[in-house]
Parts: sequence; C-alpha cells; structure tokens
Amino acid sequence: MARKKKYPRESLVSMTELVLPNDTNTFNNLMGGRLMHWMDIVSAISAQKHSNHVVVTASVDNISFKSPIQLGNVVTLKAKVTRSFNTSMEVKIEVVAEDIPADKKMESNLAYFTFVALDKDGRPTPVPEVVPETEDEKIQFDGALRRRQLRLILAQRMNPKDANELKSIFDIKTDFKL
Amino acid sequence: MARKKKYPRESLVSMTELVLPNDTNTFNNLMGGRLMHWMDIVSAISAQKHSNHVVVTASVDNISFKSPIQLGNVVTLKAKVTRSFNTSMEVKIEVVAEDIPADKKMESNLAYFTFVALDKDGRPTPVPEVVPETEDEKIQFDGALRRRQLRLILAQRMNPKDANELKSIFDIKTDFKL
Amino acid sequence: MARKKKYPRESLVSMTELVLPNDTNTFNNLMGGRLMHWMDIVSAISAQKHSNHVVVTASVDNISFKSPIQLGNVVTLKAKVTRSFNTSMEVKIEVVAEDIPADKKMESNLAYFTFVALDKDGRPTPVPEVVPETEDEKIQFDGALRRRQLRLILAQRMNPKDANELKSIFDIKTDFKL
Amino acid sequence: MARKKKYPRESLVSMTELVLPNDTNTFNNLMGGRLMHWMDIVSAISAQKHSNHVVVTASVDNISFKSPIQLGNVVTLKAKVTRSFNTSMEVKIEVVAEDIPADKKMESNLAYFTFVALDKDGRPTPVPEVVPETEDEKIQFDGALRRRQLRLILAQRMNPKDANELKSIFDIKTDFKL
Amino acid sequence: MARKKKYPRESLVSMTELVLPNDTNTFNNLMGGRLMHWMDIVSAISAQKHSNHVVVTASVDNISFKSPIQLGNVVTLKAKVTRSFNTSMEVKIEVVAEDIPADKKMESNLAYFTFVALDKDGRPTPVPEVVPETEDEKIQFDGALRRRQLRLILAQRMNPKDANELKSIFDIKTDFKL
Amino acid sequence: MARKKKYPRESLVSMTELVLPNDTNTFNNLMGGRLMHWMDIVSAISAQKHSNHVVVTASVDNISFKSPIQLGNVVTLKAKVTRSFNTSMEVKIEVVAEDIPADKKMESNLAYFTFVALDKDGRPTPVPEVVPETEDEKIQFDGALRRRQLRLILAQRMNPKDANELKSIFDIKTDFKL
Repeated sequence: MARKKKYPRESLVSMTELVLPNDTNTFNNLMGGRLMHWMDIVSAISAQKHSNHVVVTASVDNISFKSPIQLGNVVTLKAKVTRSFNTSMEVKIEVVAEDIPADKKMESNLAYFTFVALDKDGRPTPVPEVVPETEDEKIQFDGALRRRQLRLILAQRMNPKDANELKSIFDIKTDFKL
Repeated sequence: MARKKKYPRESLVSMTELVLPNDTNTFNNLMGGRLMHWMDIVSAISAQKHSNHVVVTASVDNISFKSPIQLGNVVTLKAKVTRSFNTSMEVKIEVVAEDIPADKKMESNLAYFTFVALDKDGRPTPVPEVVPETEDEKIQFDGALRRRQLRLILAQRMNPKDANELKSIFDIKTDFKL
Repeated sequence: MARKKKYPRESLVSMTELVLPNDTNTFNNLMGGRLMHWMDIVSAISAQKHSNHVVVTASVDNISFKSPIQLGNVVTLKAKVTRSFNTSMEVKIEVVAEDIPADKKMESNLAYFTFVALDKDGRPTPVPEVVPETEDEKIQFDGALRRRQLRLILAQRMNPKDANELKSIFDIKTDFKL
Repeated sequence: MARKKKYPRESLVSMTELVLPNDTNTFNNLMGGRLMHWMDIVSAISAQKHSNHVVVTASVDNISFKSPIQLGNVVTLKAKVTRSFNTSMEVKIEVVAEDIPADKKMESNLAYFTFVALDKDGRPTPVPEVVPETEDEKIQFDGALRRRQLRLILAQRMNPKDANELKSIFDIKTDFKL
Repeated sequence: MARKKKYPRESLVSMTELVLPNDTNTFNNLMGGRLMHWMDIVSAISAQKHSNHVVVTASVDNISFKSPIQLGNVVTLKAKVTRSFNTSMEVKIEVVAEDIPADKKMESNLAYFTFVALDKDGRPTPVPEVVPETEDEKIQFDGALRRRQLRLILAQRMNPKDANELKSIFDIKTDFKL
Repeated sequence: MARKKKYPRESLVSMTELVLPNDTNTFNNLMGGRLMHWMDIVSAISAQKHSNHVVVTASVDNISFKSPIQLGNVVTLKAKVTRSFNTSMEVKIEVVAEDIPADKKMESNLAYFTFVALDKDGRPTPVPEVVPETEDEKIQFDGALRRRQLRLILAQRMNPKDANELKSIFDIKTDFKL
C-alpha cells in the first residue's frame, strides 16, 4: 500500500506563552529549560498532527540561545514538520519573543526536535511522507537529511565517513545550512 | 592577576526528581521537555558553583533520548563543569532513571549545556579555569574543545575549515567521542 | 489628536495547550476553571497587542460549556479584539479541542472577555479604534454594542429602559445574536 | 419516589488562597483567569456536596471584576447552591480579598456558576431540591429562575419572548436583581 | 501601653482543596508533603489574621498521618491561633478529608505550627494576647505551654529538668494531652 | 527466613532545588510548607531505596526552622534511613541552603520522617534491617529508639511510664540527643 503524503502546513502549530515570575531567574530572564519545555510541547503537537499518532521525543538538535527573554514578554512558538523518515519526523520550531507595551521584538530562536510515532501498543509506526510546497519548505526538506546524518554521528550510530551529504560541508562550503 | 582555578568535583551537583502525572504523556512516559527543564536547572546550579556568579544558558548540545522513563520512576541528574572558556562553561549532565520497587535501572542519558557567567550588571564576566583530576575528567576536558568547535559551526560563527580538532574526525576516526 | 485605528487581524493571537492530568477531574474531563484561565491569558495578550499597554480583565460574558474536553486532547484558542470603547476592549475567543490520534474535533466554545488598558501609573488609558474588515468582523463589531449594554445592565450600571439596542431583542427578534 | 431536599447551608464551602507571584501580572495584580479557576473549584465542591455526585461545569454567568487584588493578599471564596433544576444546580460564589497586614478589605466580587451532576457512567442524574431558609437564600432562590432564563436565551436555547420572568424587567423595574 | 487582646475565633481560617493527580503517589494517595504545604499556608494566614503582620514559620510539631487521603477527595483545613508568646503564636490545624460522592469522611489529622510575626524591617514584633472563650479553646490555651516546653527541649534550647509543666506527665498521668 | 540487611549509605539520596518566586513569601523567604514538601519527597525516595517498595508518610517529627532561606538560594537536601522497625523506617534529612554568588551557606535544618512500606495490595510489608557503619550512623541508630518512643507517646499510642529509654532523659541528662 502506498504511504500517505502530507504538506508541512497541515502540521503547523502556533503556541503563545506569557513569561511568568516562576519561569525566570534572578535577572528576570526566562530560563532556557522552560523555553525547551514549551518547544517540546509545541513540536510534539505538530508531530501528532502530521502522524495522527501519539509521539515521543527522540532527539533535540543543538540549540543556541540568543538575546534574553524577559518577565512579562509574550513568547510565540511556531512548529512545522520538515521531513519524515519511516517512523520518525523532524520538526522545526521558530521562537519569537515580544515586549508588547514597548512594541519591541527580540531576535528569534530556532530549534529542531525529532519524534517517533507510536501505535496503540507503544511500538514505532510509519508516518506520512512530507511534500514540501514553498521555497523555504524545500530548503528545510533537503537540510533534514544532513541534520539527520549529524544526529546519527553524534549518537554514534553512523560512521562519519559514511555521511556523504554532511562530509562535503567540512571540505569546501562556507555558507552551509545545517 | 592570575585567573582562579577549580576542580570539576567542586561543581558537582546531584538532583533527584520523582516523575509525577503532569510530567508524563498519555503512555505515562516522562515528556522530553520536562527532562530538559530539570537538566537546565541542575547544570545551571553546577555552573553557578564553579563561577560563583549568576549564569544564563547559552546553548544545549544535541540530546538523544533513549529508553522511556515512566510515571513513578526516580530520576537522578548529576552535573559537573568540564571546561571553561573565558566567560563561558560547559557542563556535562548524566541522567539515570530507576524503577525502585522493581529494582531496575534504565539506560542513562547524557547532555552538555553551556552557560555564561554574568556580573551584577548582567554583563559576561570571567570564570575560573578547570583543572581535571580523574581520567574521565581529562577526556571530558579534551572533548570540550571539539564540542565547542561543532557548536560554533552549528551556530554559524565558525568556518568548518578552521575547525582543526573537529575536522580530523570526519577523515579517519571511527570511535571518536564528541 | 486623532485616535489611532487598528484592524482586528492585528490583535489575532493563537494559543495551543495540551490537556494534562492536573487539568482534569475524575472523569478525565478538562475542568472549566482551567479553560477559563487559558481564555484569560490568550485574550489578555490579544488586548495587549491592540493597545500596546498592560491590560487588566474588566469582565467576562456568560460562557456555556459544550461537549467535554478530554485528557490528552489538544486545545486551540484564538483571540481577536472586536471593538474598543475609549479605554476598554472586547475580545472574542474561539476554542477548539481535538483528539488528534482519533482525528476528531469537538464542538467549539465561544467567549467574550473585556479588558481595560493601563498606563505606566496604572490608570486607564485610551486605546486605538477597531476597523472591522471581514463580514464576520463587522457582525462582531455591531454585536459588541449590544453585549456592552447587557454587561452594564448586569453590573447594574445601566437602566434597562435605556438599553435601546438591546431592548428591541426582547420584543420581536427570534434569531438575535448577542 | 419523592426527590430528596437539602438546605443551602449544607453545601456551603469556604476556600482561602494566598496570591503568589505566578498568579499576578506585571502590576502585581491577581489575573482574572486565576480567580475564575479558584471560583470553579470552590463552586464545583459546593455542587458536589449538594448532589453527592461528580459534577461538570455547565456555564458561568457574566462576571465583572472590581477593585484589583494584589500580590500577598488573602482571597476568601464562599460558595453555596442557590437552586437546582432537575440535574443541574446554580452556585453563588462570593469573593473577598484582604490585605491583612494593612487590615484592609477590598470590594467583593460575585459570580454564579452552573453545574450538572453525573452518575457513574457519566450521564446527567437528578439532584436534591433546594429549600431556602434565610431571607437572602429566598431572594437567591427566586432570582435563580430569571438568571436561568437569561442563560438559556444567551445560549440561544430559549426564545426571548417566552422568558416571562425575565422580560418584565426590561419594561419597568429599575432596581431589578438578576 | 497595654498589649492588645484577641479571641481565637478572630483568627479562624478555613481552606478547601481538591486532591489532584500531581498531589498523589502511585497508589493515588495524597502525599504527606503536599498536605503539610497546605497546613503551612492555612496556618500562616491564621497567624497573619491574629497579628496583622507578615509571619514566618518557626516550627512544626510532630504530625502523625492517619487513614490515607485519596485522589478526588476534598480536604478541608481549619486553623485557629491557640496562644501567643510575645512575638510568636501557636496555631492548631484540623484536617478533614471527604469522599463526597461516597458520602464518607476520613479520620481527621491534627497539627500545631508556630509562627513569628515580623515588622516592616523583618524583625520579630509583639502580637496580641489570646483570650480563649470556649471550653476547647481553654484546653488548647493551657496545653500550648506544655507543647512549647517540649518544642524548646527538642530544639535543645531548654533543659528538660526545667520543664515543670511537661515533666509531671512522665511521672503519673496516663491520659495527658500534649 | 532471615530478614534482609542494608547499610544506611545504600539509601542515601541527594536533592537540589532552586528557590523560585512562587516558593517565597512577601519578604522573599522560602515558605516552610514548600521546604517540608521537598523533605517529604527526598525522604520518601530514600525509604523506597531501602525497602524497594512504595512507601507512605507515617509521621513527621518536630521541625524547627532556623535562619531564613532566600529567593535564588540553592537548597540541598540529603536523606538516609537511620533504622527500621518491622514495616516502618525512620529517615533523617539534612538541609543546607546556599547563596552561591555570595559564597555563603546558611545554618542547616534537620528533620526526621517515618514511612511505612506497602506491598502491591497496599498493605504494610516488612523492610530490611539497618546495619549502621559510621560513628554518626550508630548514634542515629540508637537515638531512633528514643525518637520512636516519643512519637508513640505523642500519638497517644504508648503510656509515658513505659517509655524506658526516653524517660531517663527527664531525670538527669542535660546533653541528651533526641
């Protein structure tokens, strides 16, 4: 039977959170762990929408935190599935923080989470293929393969010399996107 | 003035958490986001101990989640600073989950978080150097340099061809440790 | 000075929440109080976006809860300012709950919250006028006047016989919209 | 079999909450959504006491928020069933906030929540009749009929021209109580 | 200036809590720590009411937990100041748990917490004397002295041989009340 | 069959918590109830480790709170089983609070919690004996008997005149340890 196909926009999820006192450190900055907690929830819902299955977090890619997010800021997280690999899906999360009374947006954060879909018995189950539509979705779809190789190498489940897509980066490209 | 030095054991922090219903998904498995929240708190305390300053999360390395952790399990997180780089510190976090009534330990998770120390005005401030003592601490200390290069490349703040320590991995080694 | 104008779409806010164990009663149904808490947060952010000021909840209109929302459901709340009255704003909130693995949407809920914008000293301050664009936004804009009269009567700050827009409803219309 | 009867005082429930940092906005005022969450819990317990069944929130009447409640204030909520309608009950909630060190009470809030009693299979089940004793309980008992008509009209489940008790208000009375 | 006097009933505080999933262990029993957390809040409010000052917990007397409290139970805590000692107050807390749908009350718990009143600079400040009215309030008032001696002995701030009220118990009485 | 034996170090559990805004009162001091909640969790895990069974809190000994713990402080709790009595265990908890940026440790707190081990049907079940190793463990092991007698007297389940170990204290010793 042919595997089902879905567009990235079908898994788009938007989540908005208000930064409360307990989310912050003594400088009134949002703690990184709280932000990752929100990222995990929004991307898990996105992966659920793509797969119509319960999902579990398989891995999180390197995240680099930029300008601090403050108490009272509004944080908007948007998640979309970029590509699927049999029973797993990569989800891209974009984070924007705003100080609305001051009408100011902070520099955004970006993260990639990977999920595995589970059937009713808790076993991995196949998910629909992703069919990218927009230019950006196609770039994300292509990059997903390189990010997957890096993930497998970092988890020591792939030999670096077999990472064809990835390895080339380390020879010549200076403007690569992982 | 010579920069202060500290041993990794001086920043060792141990944290124990009980997995409660609100930490779990519909399969009663601990959600990845909650675990990352705990990792962030334990490693921030470790970085505080090393630097005696308030710290902010700068980045999180790739994390791969292994066997699921269940409702009622006891999760123990141990964090220790591996190396410092002027105003930033890398912290290694080891996670072990146990089903105590069943006397069963789950396969452990491993993560690296990086923090920046801040002075009273919220500006980055130098932190003590790390002096590794045990064999494992020396391995972590050396690996910290390669992990840092990968972090900078992934954040697009370093050109891959300048990543001397890292690049060699992609040529020959098959049993590398990042 | 002419008062600023804004479109309803400029205050659109979308929030997604996962129903966790602590949000539910012993039948695993989402408690009404938790849903109202979420409604208050999403509509306060919407009113903040319209006014670019901190806001406080002034009133909540009659809410009727429909089909029960279950543990594990995903709840999406969409809020948009419908009309402003000098220093106050009415926000409409639409709530949809989904059982994603079962691909099932519950009947939606609807609510109206009113907020007052505050300046830096905590005093009410004027907000932009609302310029409705779509057909539905125009219906909401007109209805806002009748809902406001009902609110004032219920708070005993208006004499029912002065509620011209509202009173007519009680004579003839059978298909009115409040 | 004759339906059981109960007095309002048998369902009286008192709840006291301390306003903590996470309950407040950036002006240190209690957020309306948190107050509604507490109102829902105290009135659900009151409806449980009256019916000796699990209950679900059916509707919330218009609430108007008065003087702001501050961080550190003590909030006391008192709930009591006013009248029952076969399987549903109306609960009245009175809210008082105090700044105890300053020995100051804020103007009180008032709200009406309606609940449906459920049997072990989750289906609506009859509840005892209410027998008002005090003068105020009799006023609440009578008003409950008018509030119910308004609720049904607002939920578009009653034609306004059939709302006999309610309609009269809009002709003459100026000092009505809804 | 004569020290102010107050009746125990002036500091009576009643608090009601619903046992939610996160408050329970894997047998669905309320965890002792959560109950103590609620005891501390209700008794701190009671001590605030007596003293009209901010208060801090000074000590907790031996608590023995009786029949287990279950998920979905309603817990009612009643607190009242029994006696004051210059800047400190003893508060008695009675706890009753009910399974309302089953119309069943659990055996009650009893606890004594002691608080110190603080002035605006955070220093201990005198509180009103307690004037017991009922028979039970007089018994509590008398027992407070013996409980205070035991507290001081246990904190090693009193020599047992100086505990006149308390010591007699260990000679003859078999039906003593601490 | 001979009853199993275990060393105190086998039940050692360390827990670290960061004091967040919601844990504090209006003077930014950690509330006693939150600290007792943490004590209960860490000591329950310790008792679980000793018994390899689910446990319930049976009693808490008198706790006296010393120097205040502040917002932003790091609290470390260490728990270890001191002695077992057929189906119950006494756990000793030591609490240290630190202001790490100021490199300052607060005076520590000490508490004793008692737990009962439950089998799969929720009935009390025997636990291993404790074999103390260090000097301090032996002192704790001996003191556990006296503390248990006091607990039974305070719960009115033992006649003071039968408390042989305890009673002697009230005659002569001035430097006793309970």
